[in-house]
Order: sequence, then C-alpha cells, then structure tokens
Amino acid sequence: MRILVDMDDVLADFDAEFLKRWRARHPEKMYVPLEERTIFYVKESYPQDLQPLVSEIYLEPGFFREMMPVDGGVEAVKTMQQMGLEIFFCTSPLYVYKNCVLEKYEWVEHHFGAEWVNRIILTRDKTLVKGDILIDDKPIITGVESTPMWEHILYDRPYNRDVNRKRLTWQNWKQVLGM
Amino acid sequence: MRILVDMDDVLADFDAEFLKRWRARHPEKMYVPLEERTIFYVKESYPQDLQPLVSEIYLEPGFFREMMPVDGGVEAVKTMQQMGLEIFFCTSPLYVYKNCVLEKYEWVEHHFGAEWVNRIILTRDKTLVKGDILIDDKPIITGVESTPMWEHILYDRPYNRDVNRKRLTWQNWKQVLGM
Repeated sequence: MRILVDMDDVLADFDAEFLKRWRARHPEKMYVPLEERTIFYVKESYPQDLQPLVSEIYLEPGFFREMMPVDGGVEAVKTMQQMGLEIFFCTSPLYVYKNCVLEKYEWVEHHFGAEWVNRIILTRDKTLVKGDILIDDKPIITGVESTPMWEHILYDRPYNRDVNRKRLTWQNWKQVLGM
Repeated sequence: MRILVDMDDVLADFDAEFLKRWRARHPEKMYVPLEERTIFYVKESYPQDLQPLVSEIYLEPGFFREMMPVDGGVEAVKTMQQMGLEIFFCTSPLYVYKNCVLEKYEWVEHHFGAEWVNRIILTRDKTLVKGDILIDDKPIITGVESTPMWEHILYDRPYNRDVNRKRLTWQNWKQVLGM
C-alpha cells in the first residue's frame, strides 16, 4: 500500500507558524484563531486590506523551513514505513515558489533525515501521482485526471469540517486506516 | 495524450554548461567531448581524482539556472501544447538538492513563462507519474512501480546509443511521435 502524504498543515504546521509570526509582527491587528477558520486558504480568511500583510509573512525566507511539525505526524509517518507501507510526500509549492520549494526539501531532511528527501514529490497537480491513499487537508483536490488513482482521506482541520469524507488525525490514523 | 518531458539534457543543456565551465576553469585538464561520452553521469565519465572538481561545478549556484536550452526543445514543447498535447515537466533533483531545486523552477519560468511553472513535477521516482509518454535521455528508468504508466521514448544522446529503444530528437520528434 502506497500512502501519499501532504505536507502543509498535515505534517508541517503552516497555520501555527503563520499565527505566531502574525501576532508577533502585528499585535494590534485582528487575527483568526485556527478553530474559527472556515476557509482553506489563510489569506482569504482575512479582510482584503490585510491580505498583503498576510502573504508577506508566509512568503518570507525561513517560513517554510521553520514550521514546527504537526503533533504526532513525523512519528506516524515513520511508524507507517516501519509497518511496511510505502510513503511519499506529495506537496504543492506556492505560485510564488521562491522560498518554499527549497525549504520544503530542507524541512523533510531536518525532520525525517536525508534519505527521506528522495520521497518528495513536488507537483501542483496531485491527480497525476499514483498511490492508494492521499492524506491531505485540502477539501477538494482536482487536476487533469478526473479519476485519481488514490482515495483522498481528509486530514482533519477546522476549515474542512463541512466536507463529508473519511478523515483522520495523527491520533487516530491507525484506526481509520484499519491498521 | 499526456507527454512527460525530462529537463536535464533534454530541454536544458546540462552537458554544454558543464563543458563550458570545466574548460574555462580547468583549461589545463583533460575533458571528455560530448560525442565521446559513453556514460550517463558526467561525473562517472571522468577519472576518480577529477570527480570532486566535476561535481563542484554542477553543484555551484547558478549552474542549473544558467543552462542554455537544448536546440529546438522549447519550441517543440510549445508546439506540442498548441497541438493539444498535455505537457508536464518531469524532472529529478540531484541528491545535493540545494541549488538545483529552485533553479529548475526559475529555468522553466525564464524559458517558458510563469504559467508553465505549474507543469513542473519534481520527483526522484518517475514511475509514480501517470502519462502516456516520457521523453528522457536516461537509458533505464526505474522506481517503485515496475510497470510505469508511460512509454519511455529516449531523447537521443551520445551516451545512450547502446540502448535499443524508440528515440527522438527535437529535430525529428513529429515523425517519431506520428504527429
């Protein structure tokens, strides 16, 4: 069984890194606590006049490299591999790719080790990648293949709870995947 | 029809960039002209004592960004797209990924335009990607899928002429692909 695992907000805590930097940089401005987020994209969760300041933060050097791991994620993925599952990281760079592309590689090397870097697939279209399961927090995943070769299991996040699909966290993944 | 196109030595002239830098930097040292290359990896084509100097060149900042396009390649790919073929760049970063990862994106943006960046698939295992044809100069392409979903058509290079497989260049691709 091959499991494709998304990175942002599944393994690497994009939202926490954003909120930490946002609140430190703009303590006088409003913020949207994670539990109140109903929109997938953090930028679109903020009023239009604040959006340039929002993207400034996640586009800056170091943002992707310095994200903390999502609780239990690294351990879960390593356990999956030890159980004989085949793991690949399947992640989409931002349109403004300058910092995130390299930093995603550095993040994997730092948190998993150099040999795991070979398991990174960077693509804006995940429907092209062959796997049995894709664990991803994005509610709807589309691309050139209308029938992808994987089953999409949602990584549970506050902003995707309106979607009715099989979902897991790093606390209950064994149960959800029937391991 | 979906065509996956490799980058190094298929679209971006890795070998020419290497030879240009090698001969400028080490004019007193031997070099292997492209037509005499029988080994896929440039490093392995040189005597062991020179190999650290070889890799120093292709690992340095700017090497991947500054490669010249292979003659006719950019035009061929753009023509393919205009003919209705679906194109994705399918390329493997080096193990030492520091410079090449970002620079591959910059290269595509510079030579094709920003919207083509969405068509990059960066993976060390190309057998996971679904396509009809993979145009690649590497003689043997292996990965976790023993039966990839594409037909591998060799991009003709001096060092892969011992392999008996359908092959094309950017001069005869229409004929080979039956366009």
